[in-house]
Amino acid sequence: MASALPVSQTVKRKLSLHVDKDLAAIADLHYRPVYEWVEKPINVVHFTPEPASWFKLEQVHRMSIDQLQNTPLGKNDDLILDFGSHRVGYLSFYLDAAGDNVDAPCRLRFVFGEVPTDVTEDLSSCNTWISTSWLPDEVINVDWLPCQVNMSRRYSFRYVRIQVLDTSQKYRCLFANIQVRATSAVSPAVFNAIPPLNAEDPLLLQVDKISQVTLRDCMQTVFEDGPRRDRRLWLGDLRIQALTNYSTFRDLKLVKRCLFMFAAVAASDGSLPACVFEHPTLRAASDYIVDYDALFGVVVYEYVMASSDLDTAKALWPTILGSLRVPLSHLDPETGSFVSSRTELWKFLDWDERLHPDAAMHGLLLFCLKRAEDLAALLGYPPPYTDVIKRMTTAATSVFLCRGVSGGGSRCEDGLFTSGPEKQISWLSHAWMTLAEVLPSDQSKRILVSVMHDPQALRPLCPYGWAVFAEALAKCGAKQECVSILKEYWGGMVERGADTFWECFDPNDSRKSPYGDCRNNSYCHAWSCSPAWLLRDVLKLGY
Amino acid sequence: MASALPVSQTVKRKLSLHVDKDLAAIADLHYRPVYEWVEKPINVVHFTPEPASWFKLEQVHRMSIDQLQNTPLGKNDDLILDFGSHRVGYLSFYLDAAGDNVDAPCRLRFVFGEVPTDVTEDLSSCNTWISTSWLPDEVINVDWLPCQVNMSRRYSFRYVRIQVLDTSQKYRCLFANIQVRATSAVSPAVFNAIPPLNAEDPLLLQVDKISQVTLRDCMQTVFEDGPRRDRRLWLGDLRIQALTNYSTFRDLKLVKRCLFMFAAVAASDGSLPACVFEHPTLRAASDYIVDYDALFGVVVYEYVMASSDLDTAKALWPTILGSLRVPLSHLDPETGSFVSSRTELWKFLDWDERLHPDAAMHGLLLFCLKRAEDLAALLGYPPPYTDVIKRMTTAATSVFLCRGVSGGGSRCEDGLFTSGPEKQISWLSHAWMTLAEVLPSDQSKRILVSVMHDPQALRPLCPYGWAVFAEALAKCGAKQECVSILKEYWGGMVERGADTFWECFDPNDSRKSPYGDCRNNSYCHAWSCSPAWLLRDVLKLGY
Repeated sequence: MASALPVSQTVKRKLSLHVDKDLAAIADLHYRPVYEWVEKPINVVHFTPEPASWFKLEQVHRMSIDQLQNTPLGKNDDLILDFGSHRVGYLSFYLDAAGDNVDAPCRLRFVFGEVPTDVTEDLSSCNTWISTSWLPDEVINVDWLPCQVNMSRRYSFRYVRIQVLDTSQKYRCLFANIQVRATSAVSPAVFNAIPPLNAEDPLLLQVDKISQVTLRDCMQTVFEDGPRRDRRLWLGDLRIQALTNYSTFRDLKLVKRCLFMFAAVAASDGSLPACVFEHPTLRAASDYIVDYDALFGVVVYEYVMASSDLDTAKALWPTILGSLRVPLSHLDPETGSFVSSRTELWKFLDWDERLHPDAAMHGLLLFCLKRAEDLAALLGYPPPYTDVIKRMTTAATSVFLCRGVSGGGSRCEDGLFTSGPEKQISWLSHAWMTLAEVLPSDQSKRILVSVMHDPQALRPLCPYGWAVFAEALAKCGAKQECVSILKEYWGGMVERGADTFWECFDPNDSRKSPYGDCRNNSYCHAWSCSPAWLLRDVLKLGY
Repeated sequence: MASALPVSQTVKRKLSLHVDKDLAAIADLHYRPVYEWVEKPINVVHFTPEPASWFKLEQVHRMSIDQLQNTPLGKNDDLILDFGSHRVGYLSFYLDAAGDNVDAPCRLRFVFGEVPTDVTEDLSSCNTWISTSWLPDEVINVDWLPCQVNMSRRYSFRYVRIQVLDTSQKYRCLFANIQVRATSAVSPAVFNAIPPLNAEDPLLLQVDKISQVTLRDCMQTVFEDGPRRDRRLWLGDLRIQALTNYSTFRDLKLVKRCLFMFAAVAASDGSLPACVFEHPTLRAASDYIVDYDALFGVVVYEYVMASSDLDTAKALWPTILGSLRVPLSHLDPETGSFVSSRTELWKFLDWDERLHPDAAMHGLLLFCLKRAEDLAALLGYPPPYTDVIKRMTTAATSVFLCRGVSGGGSRCEDGLFTSGPEKQISWLSHAWMTLAEVLPSDQSKRILVSVMHDPQALRPLCPYGWAVFAEALAKCGAKQECVSILKEYWGGMVERGADTFWECFDPNDSRKSPYGDCRNNSYCHAWSCSPAWLLRDVLKLGY
């Protein structure tokens, strides 16, 4: 998720400042410092124009790190370090001087790049509605050389551009022992112990591995949505991270911590914020997203399935019931169908603003209610949502499923789900209706595959939406189509040079951004890490 | 002095890396941490154009600090704090937030201004041959608000410009408890205990007080030339600072420390660097200035006169003899006159490059030899320079004094000192010949006053040169003229708004700079602090 919304999209809710001390204490109890390890740059590179490539750049070797250590740098020298892969952490180096005297500070600018364009383009002209203070550059002044410089802020990068803004006529500077103190909740030992995917396809092996790197680098003291920018715990991202985590690193403690953090900041109406702040102290964000709120119980359910920790489910049961209240308030009293316009609250689903949300939200909420019902069964509680599930199941077909009727320019003859007066057909409506098991599995599979091949159906913009679609394909048995999505969409990022999966990927537009300018995009984003989960535990590929 | 030289002016000498451990240990023994105290800004101001004023600006009250504390600031907000007077130290503040959430870092730019133009003009276009890394601006990113921010670098300023580069749409920032941890070797108690000058003239009272503030802010763990930029111990500046210190704060320990720092880094030919570096460890600068080298013995002599510390003079006696060797090597073997062109080594005297140095250097070296001779007498040592003093005294008049001869367009008929083939007449030639007591005092006074009123005579550019001229006036009995110089030149800075005395002051050009751009000038400069010494101990005004 993003750090802020355009004012037009933000519905102001009264911000809850309440923090439940008991629940927060449980979250605190599950705090664990991150693991730290050292990574070094592999060489110094530069980029030359290459119109045929995704980023319009070709990476070229410039010098080795050993050579760099013996290369004095002066005013206007400019170089790019390549750390070989994505890292999250703290840069440090020993800054020496060559020349007669260090008679002036050394002024350096650093730009931390997740992708090549981060370190080749001017950042100052970035035209984005989210904060430009997230742009990954930093100017430092070092007064006394030689000295060890430990940069205090955490950055997320593969590349580091170093610009020598000035030394003096009397000396040039020398970089030695450049390294990053990389951090993650996942230790290198755990990371390296994950067995390779049981598959032959080299692209799928890469997709699986890059999913893991993406997840590792987003797992810090909370599940962050993206280590480059927000660095916060968002509920929608958390679900995908937790699922992929169960298939790989199995850090159950971190999931539990995050669940209790959300529970601790529930508002008085029971609703949960779309994200929470860990620093300086636990606090709810004012961002509210109806679908994220609804998903809380799903995340708890999936946690219990992975952990068998029924005690946590019991402790969080009231929070789950509360979190479904606002979503349920959107149901039409007569038809039982989800009507987004009943509130102005934000229904996110994916960043594409063209998406009509009703059908997808209907499927999503029904899916969430069913998981809550499943959890009640596990806990031996009376089923709380049987009636509404029944009404919504009926409404799913009576209101949203279009049979043999052609309306508004869209094709309904295939028995597809439509949303809104324009009868919009989208991948996400079908994905969520599939996950809600509104139709028999084979029927879901048929229409999902049909929509997938329909060039007029609205596709998701971000991997968050694509992940839901891929999940739906896998769960209704369209394994081959799921694999092809993983190879085409996520594999498409790999083929375009991704070291970690991106927040936004439109194969037709390398500069697409939900924020007005791709220079503020995140390129290691939690909601993009699902392939490792889908491949290993849903498709059970090769097992 | 400045932090570097244009390449054309720098004669490369082999840099001595030798540090005499015993002498350095004595310097270390006299290290004392600076005093620290807290100062607060007095209000928020802005500047409006005012073509009639020196800086072309008029300062206008904008809001109180109390109001500022309740004024949330967002993207592009820009304000200037006025601390009321010059401070050297470390800025800190409590950075709070107003709004829903701090969902992005707060990116702030600070510019520390000694004079109004520092905080009103763009610094990035500064075109200077010394390092732009001295420009007093800093960009910081604060990740988690609210928090206390303690800026780690020391700055020198009266004004602080704060530019909010970005917060986010969700919050604005609030500044509370802004303060500077001011530092000096001079404690507030000592500073405040200095009795006012025994004089009526309000301008002279101000000149005296501002001299003291200038000196205080340059006195740190060494006598710095200027706290804004070089922050180093330069020999020429040290003489003026030490003398003014004897008349005011009387920190003898700091002078002794600095003398031993120079002695510890003498080169194998006996010469002393023009300045030394204290950090990260004691080291000679590669800058070498013949006149600064020659002055070392003078500084020791004047220290002994102030302290009666003959042991130090004994310990430093070999250093004094060594420091005169390179200067003496410039004497013409036949005439005994100083011939600058015998080496390409730098003769500084003042920043005006039009100055022909021979006559002034001759007077300066003769002055230095006489003080060494005086010191030998105090120590009971045989007089080492009697012969050369005799020869140089003769040469001073036979070579440089022009009697009734008119040459090169200059007027020599008054019995003035000239220098070079163009027979240049300058204030500095006469000032140093006067201090060297080449002529009887009344004759010196007559020609000094005559030169002072000669519009064609070359004046000094910087207060360093003006200080020598004022000293010469005072010492030959031209007290009234000295006072008028103090009032016109130093008083001229006061009338133009100086809080501390400037490194460079040309009353006809507010943007004059030895460095190509006044935005890299220092406005609190050691070599400008002499009025308090001249008024109190040379003119003995009103005592």
